[in-house]
Amino acid sequence: MPNARQFPRFAGVCTFCRFPLIDTLKSPPDWVVYGIPYDGGVTYRPGARFGPRAIREQSAYVKPYHLEHDLNLAERLSLCDGGDAPVRPYSTRETQEAACAFALGLGDGHTKLLAVGGDHSIALANLRATFQRHGGGRPLALLHFDSHLDTVDVAWGEKHTHASPFIRAIEEGLVDPKRMLSVGIKGPLNTATDLDYGRQAGINLVTWADWRHRNGVERIGAFIEHVRRSREPVYLTFDIDCVDPAYAPGTGTPSVGGFTSSEALDLVRSCRGLNLVGADVVEVLPALDPAGITALLAAHVIFEILCLGA
Amino acid sequence: MPNARQFPRFAGVCTFCRFPLIDTLKSPPDWVVYGIPYDGGVTYRPGARFGPRAIREQSAYVKPYHLEHDLNLAERLSLCDGGDAPVRPYSTRETQEAACAFALGLGDGHTKLLAVGGDHSIALANLRATFQRHGGGRPLALLHFDSHLDTVDVAWGEKHTHASPFIRAIEEGLVDPKRMLSVGIKGPLNTATDLDYGRQAGINLVTWADWRHRNGVERIGAFIEHVRRSREPVYLTFDIDCVDPAYAPGTGTPSVGGFTSSEALDLVRSCRGLNLVGADVVEVLPALDPAGITALLAAHVIFEILCLGA
Amino acid sequence: MPNARQFPRFAGVCTFCRFPLIDTLKSPPDWVVYGIPYDGGVTYRPGARFGPRAIREQSAYVKPYHLEHDLNLAERLSLCDGGDAPVRPYSTRETQEAACAFALGLGDGHTKLLAVGGDHSIALANLRATFQRHGGGRPLALLHFDSHLDTVDVAWGEKHTHASPFIRAIEEGLVDPKRMLSVGIKGPLNTATDLDYGRQAGINLVTWADWRHRNGVERIGAFIEHVRRSREPVYLTFDIDCVDPAYAPGTGTPSVGGFTSSEALDLVRSCRGLNLVGADVVEVLPALDPAGITALLAAHVIFEILCLGA
Amino acid sequence: MPNARQFPRFAGVCTFCRFPLIDTLKSPPDWVVYGIPYDGGVTYRPGARFGPRAIREQSAYVKPYHLEHDLNLAERLSLCDGGDAPVRPYSTRETQEAACAFALGLGDGHTKLLAVGGDHSIALANLRATFQRHGGGRPLALLHFDSHLDTVDVAWGEKHTHASPFIRAIEEGLVDPKRMLSVGIKGPLNTATDLDYGRQAGINLVTWADWRHRNGVERIGAFIEHVRRSREPVYLTFDIDCVDPAYAPGTGTPSVGGFTSSEALDLVRSCRGLNLVGADVVEVLPALDPAGITALLAAHVIFEILCLGA
Amino acid sequence: MPNARQFPRFAGVCTFCRFPLIDTLKSPPDWVVYGIPYDGGVTYRPGARFGPRAIREQSAYVKPYHLEHDLNLAERLSLCDGGDAPVRPYSTRETQEAACAFALGLGDGHTKLLAVGGDHSIALANLRATFQRHGGGRPLALLHFDSHLDTVDVAWGEKHTHASPFIRAIEEGLVDPKRMLSVGIKGPLNTATDLDYGRQAGINLVTWADWRHRNGVERIGAFIEHVRRSREPVYLTFDIDCVDPAYAPGTGTPSVGGFTSSEALDLVRSCRGLNLVGADVVEVLPALDPAGITALLAAHVIFEILCLGA
Amino acid sequence: MPNARQFPRFAGVCTFCRFPLIDTLKSPPDWVVYGIPYDGGVTYRPGARFGPRAIREQSAYVKPYHLEHDLNLAERLSLCDGGDAPVRPYSTRETQEAACAFALGLGDGHTKLLAVGGDHSIALANLRATFQRHGGGRPLALLHFDSHLDTVDVAWGEKHTHASPFIRAIEEGLVDPKRMLSVGIKGPLNTATDLDYGRQAGINLVTWADWRHRNGVERIGAFIEHVRRSREPVYLTFDIDCVDPAYAPGTGTPSVGGFTSSEALDLVRSCRGLNLVGADVVEVLPALDPAGITALLAAHVIFEILCLGA
Repeated sequence: MPNARQFPRFAGVCTFCRFPLIDTLKSPPDWVVYGIPYDGGVTYRPGARFGPRAIREQSAYVKPYHLEHDLNLAERLSLCDGGDAPVRPYSTRETQEAACAFALGLGDGHTKLLAVGGDHSIALANLRATFQRHGGGRPLALLHFDSHLDTVDVAWGEKHTHASPFIRAIEEGLVDPKRMLSVGIKGPLNTATDLDYGRQAGINLVTWADWRHRNGVERIGAFIEHVRRSREPVYLTFDIDCVDPAYAPGTGTPSVGGFTSSEALDLVRSCRGLNLVGADVVEVLPALDPAGITALLAAHVIFEILCLGA
Repeated sequence: MPNARQFPRFAGVCTFCRFPLIDTLKSPPDWVVYGIPYDGGVTYRPGARFGPRAIREQSAYVKPYHLEHDLNLAERLSLCDGGDAPVRPYSTRETQEAACAFALGLGDGHTKLLAVGGDHSIALANLRATFQRHGGGRPLALLHFDSHLDTVDVAWGEKHTHASPFIRAIEEGLVDPKRMLSVGIKGPLNTATDLDYGRQAGINLVTWADWRHRNGVERIGAFIEHVRRSREPVYLTFDIDCVDPAYAPGTGTPSVGGFTSSEALDLVRSCRGLNLVGADVVEVLPALDPAGITALLAAHVIFEILCLGA
Repeated sequence: MPNARQFPRFAGVCTFCRFPLIDTLKSPPDWVVYGIPYDGGVTYRPGARFGPRAIREQSAYVKPYHLEHDLNLAERLSLCDGGDAPVRPYSTRETQEAACAFALGLGDGHTKLLAVGGDHSIALANLRATFQRHGGGRPLALLHFDSHLDTVDVAWGEKHTHASPFIRAIEEGLVDPKRMLSVGIKGPLNTATDLDYGRQAGINLVTWADWRHRNGVERIGAFIEHVRRSREPVYLTFDIDCVDPAYAPGTGTPSVGGFTSSEALDLVRSCRGLNLVGADVVEVLPALDPAGITALLAAHVIFEILCLGA
Repeated sequence: MPNARQFPRFAGVCTFCRFPLIDTLKSPPDWVVYGIPYDGGVTYRPGARFGPRAIREQSAYVKPYHLEHDLNLAERLSLCDGGDAPVRPYSTRETQEAACAFALGLGDGHTKLLAVGGDHSIALANLRATFQRHGGGRPLALLHFDSHLDTVDVAWGEKHTHASPFIRAIEEGLVDPKRMLSVGIKGPLNTATDLDYGRQAGINLVTWADWRHRNGVERIGAFIEHVRRSREPVYLTFDIDCVDPAYAPGTGTPSVGGFTSSEALDLVRSCRGLNLVGADVVEVLPALDPAGITALLAAHVIFEILCLGA
Repeated sequence: MPNARQFPRFAGVCTFCRFPLIDTLKSPPDWVVYGIPYDGGVTYRPGARFGPRAIREQSAYVKPYHLEHDLNLAERLSLCDGGDAPVRPYSTRETQEAACAFALGLGDGHTKLLAVGGDHSIALANLRATFQRHGGGRPLALLHFDSHLDTVDVAWGEKHTHASPFIRAIEEGLVDPKRMLSVGIKGPLNTATDLDYGRQAGINLVTWADWRHRNGVERIGAFIEHVRRSREPVYLTFDIDCVDPAYAPGTGTPSVGGFTSSEALDLVRSCRGLNLVGADVVEVLPALDPAGITALLAAHVIFEILCLGA
Repeated sequence: MPNARQFPRFAGVCTFCRFPLIDTLKSPPDWVVYGIPYDGGVTYRPGARFGPRAIREQSAYVKPYHLEHDLNLAERLSLCDGGDAPVRPYSTRETQEAACAFALGLGDGHTKLLAVGGDHSIALANLRATFQRHGGGRPLALLHFDSHLDTVDVAWGEKHTHASPFIRAIEEGLVDPKRMLSVGIKGPLNTATDLDYGRQAGINLVTWADWRHRNGVERIGAFIEHVRRSREPVYLTFDIDCVDPAYAPGTGTPSVGGFTSSEALDLVRSCRGLNLVGADVVEVLPALDPAGITALLAAHVIFEILCLGA
């Protein structure tokens, strides 16, 4: 991150958090942040293909020193912008394959991958790459922040959509449903059976109402404590629609109610100490974000995630 | 509500929550949702006449299964979109009369009426129709969510405005002020005497500050418990400006502070079990709602209200 | 179209130009206007799936009497809104098939079809349906208003995109390239070879510069005069990006320069007397249309097209 | 107009063109510009009540020296902002009366009145005041720039709306229809009979198509020349919807096609030398004017009108 | 504040809260609210020069009776709009001097000054004027609501910026750092050393995290109680970015997380009884405030501040 | 420019027209396009510092083959994005110096410089660098497209503002006023004396009215023909406000009337064959450009300018 006193934050080609482009690095970075500008998997409003662009822009105002953790991210980790993965605009499957291959080419075998969507279907690409690079055979633990379950089997005949990344990830052995926690589920569902897959697979589900009115806070704390102690590799996936539309209007399938931005950042911060091996931040739709606050929030979530491992 | 797996939510002529149009039904519905696109009663910013249109649009993403209540609305109730009432754009009185007559023609004597505004003056039309159909002579109990008292006698020489529906409803014997609860009142008033009418009439008033800092929560709970037990007919009127402008920027007389969307939905949910006989959702002004979150919230309030009686 | 003096233009469920829904008609209409809310074929900015919804909304202000032609559309033709075709959000091919089948079920063998996009890939669906219904075996003449040629063979491995409807239509024998006129082509191209297909196939090409600075006006006039006299069946396809972005900001692949709205309407009006058998209006992208003027223009183009055959 | 080199254009309480408030003047001004913030007469989209506010804001960038006329408006005329007329938000009739009375109290018997709407119904108020002050008994000549005829007799039972100011003005003897010129009429009408009143009354009608394709330019020139020579008192009424929605998106009943801003300014400029005794600029709707260009154009139209008499 | 029943809130030249202009007063007011439309001190996004204009506009809906304090502001205090200070658009220093001189000319020696920004650099101008008028030699106590410390020494070679008003105020002896409380500090910093100045100077710092998770509430209470009892002169400075971007999107250096609007108003209300001698509300940037909610909130903060001293 | 069939236009870190970053080139380019994100010189609305960012974004849709010139820009010239110059946000003078020094470091002595603003004050920086690199001692000829003269001597005590680049350039001997052509001047001026400097210095002035109504077209043609034949070095400066606000709403000092986008592009195209040695495109203000059409137009102007020398 260049010194803003010399190079103002409104200047320059936009990269994530003003990190250097990967091609300018001399050694492989600790983390690479890269975009997957794909939204062909959506079920309602498209436009998240422009998410990486908007988040790069808004992230220009993210500074490096974390007040609460008392750490300077830029001093603790080697970070970069990996550019955007090649996408195949008419095929979620092909995009997932191309993006995974691209990601595996970023950095070296120790570099961790933070993918920026795009719709949630791109999580599968980054999960595959992360699993291959860091998983060691055992399915990953998964921390999932979202309004939606994203375990729909098929939509309009297609098995690869933004509603299905985790059912596919579980089927592929990338994720262990019993060590998967979905936080913030809310809003009306299509049918009661939407919950069946997750329940049968053993996914831990903390709905928004659980968090507000029941023992959700404790259950999240227990899950995090468990994976922190075990030191097992964890992947974090953050769908921006887990926060209320007041805080994130720019998203494709908004769900009324949900975390405030501060609550969401606190949740991510509470994961400090985990053995985080990969992450994604998805579903920012700039065309519905007139003041840019959704992309700004996403930029800060990226910052908080990177601080977890610093 | 058509199956979204076959008929995507972004497709088709927009009706409230994708309910069928009333003309296509074979038997009278349990509830009819209809619009009253009128804003001639406003005191500040007009434009709520486009509220029904915007809410129909945003409600396309409302799904039928309620997670907290564990009920599938579409399976439990027969529902429809009744279209829009005829309005008389230059006269609140004539609109109130025409809309009441239109409403009484919707469904049969058992069908309940949910009116979508439009400004708050349209509540009087739906209250009259509901009273005539369900009231049985005794004034209705009223649950009133709002930033404003709406009991102004006269504005600029006119007795029928969006500031006066409830003083008129009480005068006409449609509502019993002693069984009326106004929740969320906040913001500066014109004078201290604005409160006089309500106090003298015996309206229960829980201001936003009462709810945050005093015993407002308990008083609301007691009121709801009372009318639930008595099984008396209750009417619910929801002015979107009771939530904070961050959650509902698109409204004509916004009042800073107020419920979050989640708090508002929880309040409506807490009314489950009441003998709800009619309702309205008003004051959505799409021209000031750049990302559509106000209309989306209104659509979810409609969904929550319908679930109360399911 | 209901009388606006009784039923205000801001009221009611939105249909194209306030035409009745097809299910409410007693006999097959002369023309049916229907939506194909699909944008999976785009190469740049998605969102045109919401085009039919926005155009229905803005078309509420289209009145029936045409001042220049001195005709009352509502009195001369039987018209309706056919609703939206079923789409398959993840497949242009399947959508084209499903939409064509849907269109063939609208009205009877004499009913003409005006499809509202959606991206330009939907033109192929309506062309197939129109050809099957009205073509009689011989390829149709085609009047094509656009900034782009739309004769790209393959994009990212896919032969069915919004850049390719007319190469496919020619291949399928739906359109005769020698009786096809593309008007308004402008803006930078990818390579000089982009023009090769059209030239070899014999498509008549009147670029924006031809129209402004050379004999484009005369060539258009001659083409129209020819097809008018021959009485051969003509199909008209109107991509909103043929007008300048000042007049149509809400489109996915905007091209600087181009017709004014008035010039575009004049061009359509100049086609009066043709044996028009089908049409489409495409590429309206509401998320980039903050004041709604693009959708309003599209609504007027629809009106002008319908007047051609009245 | 304060010197912008000392008092920047972005500073200060906003008045029309930075003119002084009328209360600060020592002698009656030549012209007073005042607002009538009323939109209760509209038939479609309300919001023009905020027109005066938006035009005051955008007019801060209007400078005093007219390049073409080679005149410094601030040096040639005494000008001021008269504030806003009192309006009666629920009654067009009462507003027209109150605004007329207010206007007659501005300046002295020589002061000319430029009213800023609000919807077109406010023209009647300013016409009455102008007639009373300057007319001398004989009906005024009228130059009317508009997309609409505004001679509708009754709408929804009401004779005073934004569609009817000129039929009322003619009936009241304020305007002589035979010396009235309506320029720019365009767009579909409700029925062919909409034209009957104007034709029978003898109003000169130059439609947008007349201006583009027929002898409209000449007819306008002849009319202006006639009233210039006769030195008869002329009133000018300018509805912003006479320009294309690309130039004036912020208006309530937009009509596709129409003048460019430059053509409109040229038309006003061509009226130099007339005995202009009053004017209005109406129908700016700020909520649909995201970049403020409609209000900016209106501010320049006001400037051009004031220059006519300088 | 004129009676809104006679003079609607949407009418008239906009002044702060519809207060009279200072030139129309007969005696010096208790408080004067005036603008300093300057944003030349920003480090990121400019545009706050239009803050006074937007806040005047939105403040039209601020009514005078405070429900919680049970006081009618208009009856208790003499209040006015002092217009805008002259600014020197290219120099923060010169603007600070010119604005201070302007402020000292407003009212008499008892009149208190509430400055409306503009960026935070304008606080120094109002602090100087307030100190000179009310300070009596001893540095003022300072209540500072902000996301940022605003004690940066130099930015790009300049010592007077929106990041430095309080380091300068302390250096100039206007403010006593030991009686200065900064509330709401949050977001990433440039480096850990950003905190050094404040710590060494003895500024009381309650971060957003302190307020949420630690003893921040108590510390604020203790500070307020202390200055209330001492009756020492206090200055209040309110940077709108202390609230979350959901509540205040329209600001130049937004910081994710932060107070809700209701929490912010409560904090200001909790200061009732202080010997408040001056205040400012800064950093509203209208171009990023599409629905006007940021300026509306600022208007309410102004109202709450004025009520403190009533 | 990468192949869009492999690397979609919505993907990747945004550079001007998707040109490679200068650091990735192996040999000095023919032209470098670089940003100067500075707006501290404005007299009215700031925000043009974000111009380079927005133009980079919109230029992603600029393709390389020019239809009218029949040339493929990417094949004919070596082009790159030079990044953004360092700016000194609080000093126009220092920014002009720093940007000039930065520009002289781009490419080699043959590389030509196209600067992207920022406000018009940045033109002086690029003129200095161009003169030093290509001028050879003799002042440059200047083609100036603008609504404003930009020859103001001093504003608020400052000689370096966006209103003064050309008076300074003439004084410094960079530009020969007798071989300077200002095209498109329009709108009210502060005083008649604004024209004095240009007239006395001998600047050729073609106002917007000259172009529309008098011999402006011929005069422009003669000027261009003269400098084409002489082969003298020419600099082109393009202020986006020379086009009408309908085409370029996003600018700081908009002037009603003006070129259409098509007319403006034609004017630039008419300069083909000139010995163009440098250029700038300035005054794009993204915050007032809701649909991005201003930045898109600017991107196409850049493309047209680069094609001139190809």
